[in-house]
Amino acid sequence: MNSFELYYWPVPFRGQFIRGILAYGGSSWDEHPVDEIEEIMGREPGKQPVAFMGPPVLIDRERRFAISQMPAIAIYLGERLDLLPKTFEGRALTAKLVNDANDVLDELTLDGGREMWTPEKWEKFVPRLQKWVRIFENNGTRNGLRADTGFLLGTESPGVADIVTAILWGTMADRFPTIRQIIDDTSPVIQSLATRVNGMTPLEDLSRRSFEDYGEAYCGGEIEISLRKVAG
Amino acid sequence: MNSFELYYWPVPFRGQFIRGILAYGGSSWDEHPVDEIEEIMGREPGKQPVAFMGPPVLIDRERRFAISQMPAIAIYLGERLDLLPKTFEGRALTAKLVNDANDVLDELTLDGGREMWTPEKWEKFVPRLQKWVRIFENNGTRNGLRADTGFLLGTESPGVADIVTAILWGTMADRFPTIRQIIDDTSPVIQSLATRVNGMTPLEDLSRRSFEDYGEAYCGGEIEISLRKVAG
Repeated sequence: MNSFELYYWPVPFRGQFIRGILAYGGSSWDEHPVDEIEEIMGREPGKQPVAFMGPPVLIDRERRFAISQMPAIAIYLGERLDLLPKTFEGRALTAKLVNDANDVLDELTLDGGREMWTPEKWEKFVPRLQKWVRIFENNGTRNGLRADTGFLLGTESPGVADIVTAILWGTMADRFPTIRQIIDDTSPVIQSLATRVNGMTPLEDLSRRSFEDYGEAYCGGEIEISLRKVAG
Repeated sequence: MNSFELYYWPVPFRGQFIRGILAYGGSSWDEHPVDEIEEIMGREPGKQPVAFMGPPVLIDRERRFAISQMPAIAIYLGERLDLLPKTFEGRALTAKLVNDANDVLDELTLDGGREMWTPEKWEKFVPRLQKWVRIFENNGTRNGLRADTGFLLGTESPGVADIVTAILWGTMADRFPTIRQIIDDTSPVIQSLATRVNGMTPLEDLSRRSFEDYGEAYCGGEIEISLRKVAG
């Protein structure tokens, strides 16, 4: 039996961070089909595995523990799979970067498609996207990250912060050529980190499986169609 | 000299969680005026105290450490001021509840005012707001929280999860009578927890100071005017 269960839509988006941490940590997991996700979302909070509003939800079978909220799951798995820095500050900065990644996804989808992208809106957004890339870069360079070496928080090997950052920018770059160009032009440091981390065997395997399972899908819905028109 | 510095707008909203944790933990802090917040927001990431997009930003003077992202600051202060449960699971659930609180604020402001409230939108939102209240309630009742006693994660005294939950629902109730009624009708357990926690001296003092400093303001901007029309 696999160690974990994940409830997340069959697209990369917010779930890919969790899949990436599980894969890098050498853990096995089962995913639930869409109808089962919808079923537990519709239950009264008291009958849910953990009282939650939306996926991802992770169940740790061994510890009989369920948790929701992507940033909380990422930190939980970081503890569980020993992928967090040892210092007080490094752990807090990991949480900060994971929440930053969550915000970038919100902005890229105009908060889950509250609005649709137009060329004008996209043009206005590009400098902000570049600023996000530089924010990730600077969080790393303060701790010794360079284009060809190092990790975001000064650790010897990748941690949750690196996996989440690599998946954030790498998954986007792989699906939106315009965004790949923006990342490469803005920060060779982040481009290289993403390539180095995503090139490790478990994450390379995950990336291949995701294209097999989800095709070119990124976040799904009308907002993905609208995003492809401006950044595809 | 005060122990911490906080950069946050002169309104409750997302900053009030941080103020509440600092106040409950017996820490002193300085706040920066709006022009200084705008100034550091506009800097290149390398010249910011920590590379960040938007406030809150906390500076821990003693440890010479700066961090952004409300949920990351809340957990950092939880560690720093000893306000987190001792168990692995309790700490993860604290992060989950803080991220839930962040999501409730996003939803209540239609993601920072991307849209404006109308009576129709509000009517459709009320069942979802009630579900959020029940999610918080159920996260607590699973761990022994009752209307007249106990805390969300089974601790003997309030932790970050309780302070954030009390501030989330209490601050909203104090400013929007319609929302107070919804909370009271939906969950006497959450209503009571918020009253018990917010009634403790440091949080009562903070609440009074916030009304003195910010008046009736909640999140500010056009979206607050629009929210008052449907929930005021």
